[in-house]
Order: sequence, then C-alpha cells, then structure tokens
Amino acid sequence: MSSDATKGLEGIVAAKTYLSDVRGDVGELIYRGYDINELAGNIGYEETVYLLHYGKLPSQSELSALKTKLISYRQLPQGIIDLIQSLPKDTVPMNALRTGISALGCFDSSSEDKSPESLQEKALKIIAQIPIVTAYFHLHRQGKPLVQSRPDLNEAANFLYLINGGTEAEKDSVDTLDMCYVLHADHGMNASTFASRVTVATLSDIYSAVTSAIGTLKGPLHGGANEAVIRMLQEIGSLENVDAFIADCLENKKKVMGIGHRVYKVLDPRAVKLRKMVLKMGEKISDPKWIQMSDKIAEIMLHEKGLHANVDFYSASVYYSLDIPIDLFTPIFAIARTSGWTAHVLEQMADNRLIRPQSDYIGPEGLTVTPIDQR
Amino acid sequence: MSSDATKGLEGIVAAKTYLSDVRGDVGELIYRGYDINELAGNIGYEETVYLLHYGKLPSQSELSALKTKLISYRQLPQGIIDLIQSLPKDTVPMNALRTGISALGCFDSSSEDKSPESLQEKALKIIAQIPIVTAYFHLHRQGKPLVQSRPDLNEAANFLYLINGGTEAEKDSVDTLDMCYVLHADHGMNASTFASRVTVATLSDIYSAVTSAIGTLKGPLHGGANEAVIRMLQEIGSLENVDAFIADCLENKKKVMGIGHRVYKVLDPRAVKLRKMVLKMGEKISDPKWIQMSDKIAEIMLHEKGLHANVDFYSASVYYSLDIPIDLFTPIFAIARTSGWTAHVLEQMADNRLIRPQSDYIGPEGLTVTPIDQR
Repeated sequence: MSSDATKGLEGIVAAKTYLSDVRGDVGELIYRGYDINELAGNIGYEETVYLLHYGKLPSQSELSALKTKLISYRQLPQGIIDLIQSLPKDTVPMNALRTGISALGCFDSSSEDKSPESLQEKALKIIAQIPIVTAYFHLHRQGKPLVQSRPDLNEAANFLYLINGGTEAEKDSVDTLDMCYVLHADHGMNASTFASRVTVATLSDIYSAVTSAIGTLKGPLHGGANEAVIRMLQEIGSLENVDAFIADCLENKKKVMGIGHRVYKVLDPRAVKLRKMVLKMGEKISDPKWIQMSDKIAEIMLHEKGLHANVDFYSASVYYSLDIPIDLFTPIFAIARTSGWTAHVLEQMADNRLIRPQSDYIGPEGLTVTPIDQR
Repeated sequence: MSSDATKGLEGIVAAKTYLSDVRGDVGELIYRGYDINELAGNIGYEETVYLLHYGKLPSQSELSALKTKLISYRQLPQGIIDLIQSLPKDTVPMNALRTGISALGCFDSSSEDKSPESLQEKALKIIAQIPIVTAYFHLHRQGKPLVQSRPDLNEAANFLYLINGGTEAEKDSVDTLDMCYVLHADHGMNASTFASRVTVATLSDIYSAVTSAIGTLKGPLHGGANEAVIRMLQEIGSLENVDAFIADCLENKKKVMGIGHRVYKVLDPRAVKLRKMVLKMGEKISDPKWIQMSDKIAEIMLHEKGLHANVDFYSASVYYSLDIPIDLFTPIFAIARTSGWTAHVLEQMADNRLIRPQSDYIGPEGLTVTPIDQR
C-alpha cells in the first residue's frame, strides 16, 4: 500500500552514489568527501566539474586540460543556433533550454554511443553548451545579435558576458556567480537528478537524461522556486508588509516560496553561504531591503512552522543583485546542476538497473464492455 | 542501505492510481476496471483514450466529440513543421519526437496553465499531435512532401496514411495497428510513466512530463526493446539458427531481447494477443518464419530460464508485418502510451506530492582542499 510517505518516495533509497551526500539532520552537503563549506570559496566551478566527474581535485595541468575542452565545446552547431532563433520570443526560457538540449542530441552523431568514453565526452559537451543555449535564446528573444564566446573567460564570466550582449562583467559578479555554480552543482537524489537516472536506466541516452532533468527542475517545487521567491518578494514590496503577507499564507495554507526542504531539517548550508553573499553585495550594489525582508520571512517561518530557508530563498536575491533577469534564475540553476546530472548519468550507466517501481491500483474491478449504443 | 532490489525500486509502491493495474503474478492487465482481454477487439483506441481520461467508456456522442477534438488538434503550428524539417535526416526518430514534443510546449501559449481544464485540453492536443510529429519527421527524412491529415480517418488509419505519404492503408492493417494502440495505452508505473510523474510532481508542465517520458521509453530496457527484437530476428535470420544463437546468449549472459519482464512472472496478456495477431497476419501477408523463430526463442527461454516473452517480443513482428520501418516501432509505442502518460500526469497533478527519494552515499569522508599547486 502507498502511504503519503512512499507516494513521494520520502526516505526511500533509490541509488548508491559516490557523488554527493545531503545530511539533512546536521545541515551538511558533501561532494566526493568534501564538505561544501570546504569547497565554496576555495575551488571554482571548473574544479567542481572535475571533482564530480573524476572523483578528485585536479592538478593545474588537469584543470587546464578540462578548461580547454569546455571552451572548445562552446561552439554550437549552426542547426541549433537556427533552431533557437526559430523559437517564439515569449518562450519560457526553461522550455527553450529543454528543447535546445533535446535538439543537441539530434545534431550529435555520437548521441547513441554508450561507451564510457563517449558518455564522458558528451557530458562535458553538454556542460559547455547549456550556458550557450541559455544565453543565445536570451539574446534572440531581445532581438539582439548573438555574441561569440570568449576563450579567455571562465564559465561564469563567459555566461555573464554573453547574456550582457558582449559586455564583460565585474570580477566580483563573476566570482559570485562562480560560487553559486559550485553551491548548486550536485545535491544527492534530488528530483531532477532522479529523473535523469530514471531516464537513462532504460539504457536511453545522455541527452534524453538531461532533457528530463531540465523539465523536472523547472517546477516551482524544485529549481523553479528561485524565480518564485523573487516574485514573492516583489509582491510583498517592503519590509513592513512582510508580517501581513506571511500571516495570510499561514492562515490560508499558501506555500511560502523558498522555505522548507524535503531533506534538510536544519539550515541548508548553501543558504548560509548565499545569505552571506547577499549581505556582502548589499553593501555595494543592491538595495538592503531584500535581505531585510528575506531575513524577516525566514525568522517568522522558523518560529511559526519550524521550517528553514532553503537554497532558493537566498540564491534568488543573489541573482537579482547581479541584475540577472528573473526568468533566467532557474536556467542558471540548470547550468550548474548539469555537472551533477551528467555525473549521475555516468554513475548510473556504470552499474545500471532499470528503475521501475510499482503502483497501487485503487480503481474498480471486473467491469465488462457494454456495446456503445447501449451506454 | 540500498540493496540491488531498491536500487531499481523493485516492489516499491510509488503512487496510487485509478488508471491501470499490472498483475504480474496472474498475467492480467486492467484499465479502469476492465481486463485488457475484455477491451482489445471490443473497443478502439479513441474509446481507450476516453476510458483512461474520463474513467468510463464513452457514449456514441461522447466518443464523437472526442474524435472531433482530436482531429481538430492534428494541425501542427507552422513553427513546429519548420523545426521538424530543420532536423538532420539521420536523426533517431525518438530523438526527433522528444525534440518535437518539447518544442510544442514552446509554441503553446497555454503551456504554463496548470488548471485541470487546461491540462486536459493539452493532454488531448499532445495525443493528437505526437503521431503527426512522428509522421512528418518520417516524410522529411525521406525528402517527401508533407501530407495533410484526413479528418475521415481514425488515429491509426491517419497515421498509416501519413507515413505512407498519402496512401490509405487496408482495413486489416488499420484494425491491427488500432489494437496495438489499445494494448500499449497504459501499463501501471512503468519507467516512462514514472518519469512523467517525477517530472510533473515538481509542478512542472505537461510538455516537460511527456518529453521526459519519450526520452525514457526510448531505451532498449523499455520501449526500445521492440526495435531490438526485430534486429535480433534479422541477425538470427532463419529458424535453424535459433538454437545456436540462444545458446550463445545464455552462455555469454547476453540479453535476449523481448524476453522477461520486471513485473510479469507469467505470460504477459498483451503478448498473447499480439502473437495471435502475428499468426493471423502470417496467413495473409507476412513470412511465417518470423512467428516460427519467435515461438522457438520463447520456448527455449521459458524452458531454460523460466522467462516469458513480453509485449515487445510480438509487437515487433506485428509492426514488421505491417511494413512499418523498424525505427518507427518505438515511436508507435510512444504514440499509444501518450494516452496513458497524459492521464497519469493529470492524476499526479490532482493530488500532488514531490517525488524525491534518497540516495546512499558510499564515497569518502572528511577531505580537505589542498592548494592546486600542491596537488
């Protein structure tokens, strides 16, 4: 029988993994043996990609080789560029991303090769191309010309350079986005990662797996929450409106976006890092009211419901402070998480078993077909 | 801890459902209270769509209204037609289908509307459009002009008409494909249906859910098996080669395609129906060697391993006898299963909970970052 718990597979272990661990009871996140607090600020996103995919931190030459490869993969096939530019300009960016990554599989003649070597190459290709798909769609929808990637810029810097139409971002902004990428790279058996493993466990391909993950991340109960948080803050508008807004949510059982998490029962360590980043940015470039409102919401929710702020709660303010358009917040999450998704796909394929649960039938029994003229 | 069993979520109940039940111990498949043997041959595919989506068999007027609606949705947006025609001609059809359905979400201004009414409309739209996307890609890759759908033809007949470039199929062929659609419409918590529910359970959208399902069905451990079966039969080539081929598979632990099933421990009731269809067609149009080879393989595998033939084992021969190109077998499975996928999406959304299991971390612990120049 399916209880409410197993309905969402809460607490059910679906896979063993070497990649990451979410320790919800103590508020820890581990990548390959390193606590996220040990990594964030000490290593950049490309090193994180290396760590997740190869199981250790790279030497300087290993890191350079990885960076060179990622840079070489930034060039999209012309067919993909044409396809992105044929999408309606009001397309939801996550839908454009889902379609673009799916289409990349059509334009990659190695898409069906399931050898570990080919899977690894395609993983790096997708990691390098997903930010370009995102940025090119963003330029297309604004009617702006596409901009060539800059090989001297790292992943975070190149993405900001592209979405800003060819203007290089400040070092502080790049470092901030880079740390956000590190914080979002992997997170145990989250829903989108799980979707990617369910997909590839039929021995389907890596493009299918990442496409499933993007469509799954999109929802507001997952990655889509970061966009929902900022829209909530905009709706509240000012610090003095917070009390009434949250009281209304609690009274009418409306979800307060960015609060609570399936696994973390204490504070999400990523939220702690991100909050500090918002504070630091608030000193320089952004309006302090966002962090004040956020802190007040977090405080009320902890007091009233015992629920903590999660990663989306503060990442939203970070991206907002970086002047990133709101509907690119979830695509940025997708860009970072692609490193984790693809590592999980490789791990699943290395020791695969079809992921196929059961369902509990609660419908009628023993019916017989009445001829249609007698219904 | 994750055992090999929970690794694939075997036996874990992931959802309650009113839609269908797979009774693996007795070889029964139930749709909404009707045994599949009661339905197949008694009702057509459009009635099955109605049954799955509305929970009862339709009256004549209800069925007519549904058919009219499905026919009205057959026209694809011009942007989708252009996109299909921009795909490389050697694209794997399931990749084209995945991309086309994802793109349909970009061209549907109601894609983000999660009201039950809008979800139901989009479900019917996707059911009507997925065969058109498949057929148009098939015409495109052959360099043939696209053909307009015929409103006087039912779903199975129109699909055959389109893939044959505007030639109407024989009634027997239409009835055969129609019954295949009925047999493939739903099947409990199979991997692709599960993927669609995982995706939409983040409150993502129905296009994302069906896109995930297509990518998941594609793998040879799921829908892709029907293509693998016919390629295996072609490789074996003749009845007298069967013994040696299967002996080699058993000795070298190679998978025999279309044999064995996660849930059925006795004969799959769909396999029984499909075998009869192959026999009947063999009398008229196809070479009897396929059914003879198939039966011999099934017999050996049952005797040697206690494993039964599954739905893909005989559906492959049915489609082959209908002169359908081999790489459209899995897309046909997708076309039929879209009725089930979309019904599951609506059921999930009507009483949603995030599907988010756990993983069991087996990597190292307590590592600290060494500066890169000392690694």
